[in-house]
Amino acid sequence: MQKPLILITNDDGWDAPGLRKLINIARKLGDVAVVAPDKPQSGMSHAITMSHPLRLKKIAEEEGYREYSCNGTPVDSIKLGEQIVLGRNPDLVLSGINHGSNASVNIIYSGTMAAVIEATIDGIPAIGISLLDYSHAADFSHVDEYVTQIIENVLQEKLPKGVCLNVNIPAKSEHEIKGIKICRQAKGRWAEKFDIRTDPYKKEYYWLTGEFEDGDTSPDTDSWALANNYVTVVPVHYDLTAHRMIEELKGWE
Amino acid sequence: MQKPLILITNDDGWDAPGLRKLINIARKLGDVAVVAPDKPQSGMSHAITMSHPLRLKKIAEEEGYREYSCNGTPVDSIKLGEQIVLGRNPDLVLSGINHGSNASVNIIYSGTMAAVIEATIDGIPAIGISLLDYSHAADFSHVDEYVTQIIENVLQEKLPKGVCLNVNIPAKSEHEIKGIKICRQAKGRWAEKFDIRTDPYKKEYYWLTGEFEDGDTSPDTDSWALANNYVTVVPVHYDLTAHRMIEELKGWE
Repeated sequence: MQKPLILITNDDGWDAPGLRKLINIARKLGDVAVVAPDKPQSGMSHAITMSHPLRLKKIAEEEGYREYSCNGTPVDSIKLGEQIVLGRNPDLVLSGINHGSNASVNIIYSGTMAAVIEATIDGIPAIGISLLDYSHAADFSHVDEYVTQIIENVLQEKLPKGVCLNVNIPAKSEHEIKGIKICRQAKGRWAEKFDIRTDPYKKEYYWLTGEFEDGDTSPDTDSWALANNYVTVVPVHYDLTAHRMIEELKGWE
Repeated sequence: MQKPLILITNDDGWDAPGLRKLINIARKLGDVAVVAPDKPQSGMSHAITMSHPLRLKKIAEEEGYREYSCNGTPVDSIKLGEQIVLGRNPDLVLSGINHGSNASVNIIYSGTMAAVIEATIDGIPAIGISLLDYSHAADFSHVDEYVTQIIENVLQEKLPKGVCLNVNIPAKSEHEIKGIKICRQAKGRWAEKFDIRTDPYKKEYYWLTGEFEDGDTSPDTDSWALANNYVTVVPVHYDLTAHRMIEELKGWE
């Protein structure tokens, strides 16, 4: 069987340890091309770059492996990877491993998951992977087994058209991981707060901060499963239609 | 009855004629606060600003009306509007009127609709409105009746928690608009192409371009209805879970 061609990106940027871990896992499973942002792109969601041109910088090239950084977003990275670096669709797209959770409503803000959704729009099987540890020095030593198993499942079983996977992994701790759980996206939210400061010229400025409010702790959610030390897999699609509302809205007329 | 408090933003930026049109319509229906990006933010999706602080600039203040620009994204604008400008949730959020379609898969890339989804996460009724004309000089003379009717419906009937509206309006033409149609998001996609150029220093750079591929022309889609000269209303939610896949994935174990 021919080796699968795997395209990898992330949103923490080219030098993130989580990206290195994912590259190491993927190279055991196929040929790998990496196109990753040259600076942190957390919170960039599905942003694309239209105001200035994009550039690619070759970092490494050897048998079965190519690595580039780019000056764009995670979604730009996928587009550049497909169109410029590979010249074709890869067999699989991986994004991450993100330093920090993309469970619950975090998926909406996530550059990691936006790259995965972009690949899905292009008809490519895709998986986003995140670790619940924001630290640059996060410990990824417990993830190999789970990440490998999920990638192998996707390569064997395929995913239906239009569906990708959002995988989140508990932070390394003394508690053993209980296994993999298929979940739905919890309905949490960020209660934003601004840190209001005054600059040396007496003008106000605002740093965005926030606290996560986990208002949905049903056992079928990713939030619940992560809190109970499971690796979570949420099947994700990009049809935002609230289908159940269509008939009700027709009644407004 | 007390006048509703309406918060308005857009993604084309503070000086876009579509924003002015929406402000004019909204001021007939309630008190209005505007927080709009100080430069174009098209294609910024749900991006939030964490790498630098945000600032607000007061543009206008009079009875029942306040207007600010900010150096952030459309989603930042909503957060600043709620937390800093108003200090409370408004009764309604409006975003637009966007110069260009946000039908079909465009919703994923849209800053206009991301602002609306952000408000929805915060529990605020919200409507995004777009005109199918990318020109800065777009003709908005035919939109008042439809936009007013949809806003009044939302103010009267409310929307269920977690659901917002994506409204698209055909460009002005000699053909009469046939009415308002409740639709689902069509499954189109952008077939991206890069315009490959060489800079004066002999290095390649890439401009993102693309062609929209409308692969889903069923009569219940927004794409079909817009092509047939209807104003479209798609109910939108932010649960990205592909629920039908949950049982199937459990079978993988």
